[in-house]
Amino acid sequence: MEKLRKLKYYFREKICVVSYSGGMDSLLVTLMSKYYGRYTLAVTVDNGFFPEENIRKSIELSKRYGIDHKVVNLNYLKNEVICEINRNLKNRCYICKRYMAEILVKERDELRNTFNKEVVIVDGTNYDDLFEDRPGIMAYREYGIRSPLAELEIRKEEVKEILKYLGVSIPKEDSCLATRILNPPITEERLKMVYKAEKFLASYLGLEGYFRVRDLHGTAIIEINCGEVHKIMDISKFRDISKKFREIGFNRCVLRMDSI
Amino acid sequence: MEKLRKLKYYFREKICVVSYSGGMDSLLVTLMSKYYGRYTLAVTVDNGFFPEENIRKSIELSKRYGIDHKVVNLNYLKNEVICEINRNLKNRCYICKRYMAEILVKERDELRNTFNKEVVIVDGTNYDDLFEDRPGIMAYREYGIRSPLAELEIRKEEVKEILKYLGVSIPKEDSCLATRILNPPITEERLKMVYKAEKFLASYLGLEGYFRVRDLHGTAIIEINCGEVHKIMDISKFRDISKKFREIGFNRCVLRMDSI
Repeated sequence: MEKLRKLKYYFREKICVVSYSGGMDSLLVTLMSKYYGRYTLAVTVDNGFFPEENIRKSIELSKRYGIDHKVVNLNYLKNEVICEINRNLKNRCYICKRYMAEILVKERDELRNTFNKEVVIVDGTNYDDLFEDRPGIMAYREYGIRSPLAELEIRKEEVKEILKYLGVSIPKEDSCLATRILNPPITEERLKMVYKAEKFLASYLGLEGYFRVRDLHGTAIIEINCGEVHKIMDISKFRDISKKFREIGFNRCVLRMDSI
Repeated sequence: MEKLRKLKYYFREKICVVSYSGGMDSLLVTLMSKYYGRYTLAVTVDNGFFPEENIRKSIELSKRYGIDHKVVNLNYLKNEVICEINRNLKNRCYICKRYMAEILVKERDELRNTFNKEVVIVDGTNYDDLFEDRPGIMAYREYGIRSPLAELEIRKEEVKEILKYLGVSIPKEDSCLATRILNPPITEERLKMVYKAEKFLASYLGLEGYFRVRDLHGTAIIEINCGEVHKIMDISKFRDISKKFREIGFNRCVLRMDSI
């Protein structure tokens, strides 16, 4: 495969710090760097915005593939960063990634001292991501962090293909729970509420594709894509879901009609 | 009819100022007072929270039935009352009714001077209303405003029966648009948006029963009762409605799943 050859060439002789979440993109980058580069350290910043199981999963995977892995606990919810984010919720990705970048830079500098060689920081941003609204990408650029998949124009689908080709099972995608909170403040309680609501909804409706539960001032907004929205279109299901969501702590439960 | 006899007795010899909206309850009270009392002045306070057509309708009805009618323009949206209401949106009914009561008291005092007789202020609150959450009722009580329908235990259904018996066609119910605004501030623009959205929805879906469009921080929340919610349960209708609501100015369109 052409793209795989390019990746091999990209990492040749490189020492890399990988911003590693345990998702398929950063897993591929980590594996490529480990196989074809000189040394690879996978760094996961635990910012408190992902379900706990995510961190556990990332550790499991790095063990399975023999990856040197460091988890840095920078739980924003428990420090002053969350104040900055809550003051400017629209910019949360940018703010968050800047703090994460600083952690990665620190790790790079340590590695640089150890090897006395150039060390590159890379992340899992793929080519498709460039065409979405991802304000975090810019923050990483400012810190000189590179995105091999995007640079080599490797798309989401190709990431899957390469992982399959390598015999690596594709990890389930998890996205940042902070994106579910539509008005400040982001709090641990609210993140847990949307997480519980999504868990329930997925199993209750048997959802397989994209769906989200967001919190707007205590109102739970359910988004389900058009291929699966029929699964919720039933008044008795409305009632069951509303009841459960109230138990979880929402004061109102609504189904998003646009974006379908 | 027993209740009609009681009403007749209630208004005998009374001079009344009626808080008159043009709705069925206050219309009945006005007619009873006019038929059986000594003198009746219907007063409509235009607070800016009802569609303009409401005021026009109330004038039409008073002309049709020969009612002395005064419209007092106290458009809260254009004066300092709206600030007080926006600071304490949960108390809006109470605050609003207090200002309305002051207008009615002024009218009563004028009438008292003219007739040199006792004048009573009455409103259209019926017996069923007492069992709902109507914080405005208390404000009226504080100003000594009486509710003949509630006092005589006349229910909504009986109001309809009596009007039918009298050959009076029952006016369409309109409710205060301020109840649609779930977060401050109440503004003319937001009231117009929910009004337009409700107009559209009623005709697009052919709704006959209870439904509401509320505004939570720019998100349009559609509430439709269970008997008619099936009329909206269709993805292509979701799309049409969302498109229209975005044109009206909402940034998101959702269907309320609880309260059904």
